[in-house]
Amino acid sequence: MKRITVGLALVLTAGAAFGFLASRTSAPSAQAAPLPQSLKDWTVIDLTHPISMDIPLWPGDPEVEIEPWATYAEDDYFINRISIGEHSATHWGTPNTFIEGARSAEMIPADELVVPAVVVDVREQGAADADYRVSVDDITAWEAENGLIPEGSVVIIYTGWQEKWGDTQAFLGLDADEVLHWPGFGADTVEYLIAERGIVGLGTDTHGADPGNDEEYGASFAMYDADGMILECLAGLDQMPPTGATLVVGGWPIVGGSGSPARVLAFVPSAG
Amino acid sequence: MKRITVGLALVLTAGAAFGFLASRTSAPSAQAAPLPQSLKDWTVIDLTHPISMDIPLWPGDPEVEIEPWATYAEDDYFINRISIGEHSATHWGTPNTFIEGARSAEMIPADELVVPAVVVDVREQGAADADYRVSVDDITAWEAENGLIPEGSVVIIYTGWQEKWGDTQAFLGLDADEVLHWPGFGADTVEYLIAERGIVGLGTDTHGADPGNDEEYGASFAMYDADGMILECLAGLDQMPPTGATLVVGGWPIVGGSGSPARVLAFVPSAG
Repeated sequence: MKRITVGLALVLTAGAAFGFLASRTSAPSAQAAPLPQSLKDWTVIDLTHPISMDIPLWPGDPEVEIEPWATYAEDDYFINRISIGEHSATHWGTPNTFIEGARSAEMIPADELVVPAVVVDVREQGAADADYRVSVDDITAWEAENGLIPEGSVVIIYTGWQEKWGDTQAFLGLDADEVLHWPGFGADTVEYLIAERGIVGLGTDTHGADPGNDEEYGASFAMYDADGMILECLAGLDQMPPTGATLVVGGWPIVGGSGSPARVLAFVPSAG
Repeated sequence: MKRITVGLALVLTAGAAFGFLASRTSAPSAQAAPLPQSLKDWTVIDLTHPISMDIPLWPGDPEVEIEPWATYAEDDYFINRISIGEHSATHWGTPNTFIEGARSAEMIPADELVVPAVVVDVREQGAADADYRVSVDDITAWEAENGLIPEGSVVIIYTGWQEKWGDTQAFLGLDADEVLHWPGFGADTVEYLIAERGIVGLGTDTHGADPGNDEEYGASFAMYDADGMILECLAGLDQMPPTGATLVVGGWPIVGGSGSPARVLAFVPSAG
């Protein structure tokens, strides 16, 4: 099988880069000097919604405050003070969210923020049933088309809820009984994915990995109990391939934190 | 010159990935199916300090608040409310910080958050003079060793101040006259780098791109006026190669924002 050479960037500093790379190999020869590869040549997909004071919030979570702190008129420059809940906006959740004593945000090392992702399209199911629970059968059907979910992946469900982000009532689906409605993972599905596929995280374009009307939070508990991460309120899932992308999760390393709003980017190797 | 094949990951989903990649090429043949490349095979360097309530702050900036909002005891889960200035902690600054009407945080597209970086080691100069201004001569000396700075780079100075992060007084260098002290870029150096090297950003392990005692902010004004970004309070610069790394800047897309605390990661292709 022919291998593709992806994005070998010809930069001006090949000689210099060789100096660095050479220090990482045992017996480099000048003839074998590798050219550095630039991440600039990869396709980047932004999975992050813009943050403003009127984004949809989980009921009871802190209001988003974006308050001018220094102004051009008074200070000759401009910055805001921002206040927000750790699980608002496009965000990243860490195991201590549900598991007391589990790892908090600053304990997750950088290499765990770089993680392969698969995207399971459940828009059709979600359109038919806003309380839909993604099942093991859905996973099996996805794998029949796309191959087995690689070990160490984040599994993202694309429910279509990202399109409702601009309409808080539609996004949350809060009913007269104060019950939320959006599709999510069944707890048994997450347990299966952890046990049989070795996944390390969940993602969704809704406000929770569990269906909105599920007050047991079985999917979230299972994932956090397995020391994994959960990404919620994702955007841009319409641009994602079913498999082959790698996420870079730009969450803050808050000491003792449960996660944070995060810039989540996905990288796909360009097809040369 | 031999080309290195970097990190071709053999994943279980080659066939599936081909389906996606094939849609991006004009006349794919099954024989030419490329294997996907995983970003997991790159070396990741974390350039981000952990965030807590006692990090060093620019005098007058908002206090950092990290307040438990939901607790295991009362809510069966845990999250904080966080409040912070947009230019506190390891952070990202956007052109509207100094230039009224210039681009704000949400206007910077994802592909501009992925940017090559060079690191200029000025620890010796900084140790000798806490008010040191990085000069065009420093750049020329760096290029004599490392090659020309590639167009489209962020130029980071490694002053050694990252080691003072745990000691606010040492990090800020505030004196009896309330003047700050740390090394920074000379304004003329930044103007040179923009005009002659086409750089798109500055970075530093201090709290400002300008020397601490420079109240003209010429380096920052020049960079923001050129529509570039500035990264401050960086960590991990001791692990960075002089050239060959690509940054992924995980700043929040705050609508109208001047930047934000950011998870900044650097990627170096493994010499595998």
